[in-house]
Amino acid sequence: MPTRYKVPPELQVRVQHQSVRSTAAKILHSAGVPVAEADEAADVLVTADLRGIDSHGVSNHVPLYIEYYSTGALNPRPNWSVSRETRSTATIDADKGLGIALGRRAMQMAVDKAKDVGMGVVTMSNSGHLGAVGHFSMIAAEQDMIGMTMTCGGMLMAPTFGAEARFGTNPIGVAAPANKEPAFLFDAATSSVAYNKILLIERLGLPVPAGWLTDEKGDPIMEETEVPPLGKFMVPPVGSTREIGSHKGYGLATMVEILTALLSGMQPSMVEGYKPGAPHRNYFAAYDIAAFSEVDVFKENMDQMLRTLRETKPAPGEERVLYPGMLEHEAEIDRRANGIPLHHEIVTWLDTKASVIGAPALERS
Amino acid sequence: MPTRYKVPPELQVRVQHQSVRSTAAKILHSAGVPVAEADEAADVLVTADLRGIDSHGVSNHVPLYIEYYSTGALNPRPNWSVSRETRSTATIDADKGLGIALGRRAMQMAVDKAKDVGMGVVTMSNSGHLGAVGHFSMIAAEQDMIGMTMTCGGMLMAPTFGAEARFGTNPIGVAAPANKEPAFLFDAATSSVAYNKILLIERLGLPVPAGWLTDEKGDPIMEETEVPPLGKFMVPPVGSTREIGSHKGYGLATMVEILTALLSGMQPSMVEGYKPGAPHRNYFAAYDIAAFSEVDVFKENMDQMLRTLRETKPAPGEERVLYPGMLEHEAEIDRRANGIPLHHEIVTWLDTKASVIGAPALERS
Repeated sequence: MPTRYKVPPELQVRVQHQSVRSTAAKILHSAGVPVAEADEAADVLVTADLRGIDSHGVSNHVPLYIEYYSTGALNPRPNWSVSRETRSTATIDADKGLGIALGRRAMQMAVDKAKDVGMGVVTMSNSGHLGAVGHFSMIAAEQDMIGMTMTCGGMLMAPTFGAEARFGTNPIGVAAPANKEPAFLFDAATSSVAYNKILLIERLGLPVPAGWLTDEKGDPIMEETEVPPLGKFMVPPVGSTREIGSHKGYGLATMVEILTALLSGMQPSMVEGYKPGAPHRNYFAAYDIAAFSEVDVFKENMDQMLRTLRETKPAPGEERVLYPGMLEHEAEIDRRANGIPLHHEIVTWLDTKASVIGAPALERS
Repeated sequence: MPTRYKVPPELQVRVQHQSVRSTAAKILHSAGVPVAEADEAADVLVTADLRGIDSHGVSNHVPLYIEYYSTGALNPRPNWSVSRETRSTATIDADKGLGIALGRRAMQMAVDKAKDVGMGVVTMSNSGHLGAVGHFSMIAAEQDMIGMTMTCGGMLMAPTFGAEARFGTNPIGVAAPANKEPAFLFDAATSSVAYNKILLIERLGLPVPAGWLTDEKGDPIMEETEVPPLGKFMVPPVGSTREIGSHKGYGLATMVEILTALLSGMQPSMVEGYKPGAPHRNYFAAYDIAAFSEVDVFKENMDQMLRTLRETKPAPGEERVLYPGMLEHEAEIDRRANGIPLHHEIVTWLDTKASVIGAPALERS
């Protein structure tokens, strides 16, 4: 999605990423979050913005998190606890702490277990939002591991043939390191589209493509449409219709529910009932590449595979073949140099908040 | 797929599953496969037929495997070896042994490691075909574990925007146990459709639905079509087009390639070059539920989730909502009682082979 659904140039303000990170951290800290965790959370959001994943950056999330801290849906000073642990696994209760502030700690625990016995899998329940899950998989990839992250939360996806929402958008993020090529970084909802992308499209006043939504009765809408009012649509699993393969997206969404909520000992939201702001359940896995084969050989093979993919002859009318992570890498080079293009309304919101807490305004690029 | 693309009644012969299993095992044994492994392989195929997964049963595979044993593409008496091992991982070379004959042993190794340290992940490279991968995940589920299995082999899937095949159909199979409800059993190619389903449709003389194939230049065919000659089509990733989400199927297919081939220390087929009958690379994971939470609680939550899914109000025009594994469970009850409906041509083939090796003809139901 990174090349599409961007804030149009006339509504953009380009701001320096260091400045956005610092301001977002200060705003979160002002809501009672300790400095280290506020810094961590701000870094997750700004990294998403740098990678071109605008839907999961500061725009959609800083205002929302501040609201959740004020209502008590999020706990600024959570008491993280481990309820069960083995050499390769752990089950964590995040005590309503913000997921993006705690995700690095959970993934690092999985990485440390993988260094010890080859594999590490950690579930973390009772957290706030986990953001772009691929972020945490990259933490493993940077340590010569394959990382995999999943989360469930929200209630928007109807199962194939169904007229009622049963899942959030249940994303899967996977990262694996290469040597010369940018890392493989896959991060996608198991629904047709992530909810945050719909929010972004609505803010930009654009139509929704065919296959992205169902009507309120569960029928996939297979032509371009306006974003209906909240509650008047759902999203189908990826594949959109049974014929094109929505039962596969549905099966993967159920797998995510099992590995996050049920493996943590929790009921899925579809059973316990869902309220906005309800806790997320998360899954973090790390595979120590050296436990299976030679790290150098693995990375050389990754380079060859990723190069083969991007050098694949394009289909008629297509410019080039991409691999997951390429556009994110290209966006990051651009945005580190030229700033992050934010919608002017969120820049105003951040500057206003900053002035209230005595922080400087965002630095324009 | 189980309710569709069945052999039409007028071409069916219903045969008893015990009889098919016994005959298939004897035919494989006659190709030099030891009795225990021939029995195991026959059981995998007949279990697929019992579960209604006709595309992965005896019809497509016994003749093919016999051909591969005769050409040396498969080794009837492989020397399985472990090249690297940790408390939770192992890397196996299958020495060109048939995947379905060795898969149970690989998954059981993962299960034993999970019993020891919580997680077990085993890769097995250099094998023949692994069949319906969900089969091996069920071996873990029957031991109170979550099982996950992946395989790569073949060369048929074009990446999103690509005009050249870069992957096989790279399936993912996941199973998790419930208490009263039939187990969750998800098994799907990350392509629009499994190659064996196209073979089955071709044999039945039916058209291919929209979105299942691309033309030879990589353009997804978005209307119903005849099966083109082999080499004149590819399959897109699940999602079919970029707009509907084929980049997600593509990313998952790449993940499967990484966890099977690259994690085993191998190059992917797209780099080393592909020939029909080339070895498969496989991934087996077992999650010990008891390492994370209470098994009884997990199964009770599974029951509630699966019941909630199948009791979901259907969309207009749909009969009911299914969950992955339901149709397979229903098919198995029917076929254990009433026999497996095989195409009369494969019954003749099996009976002829049986008579050559002095085995009885198949018992009709």
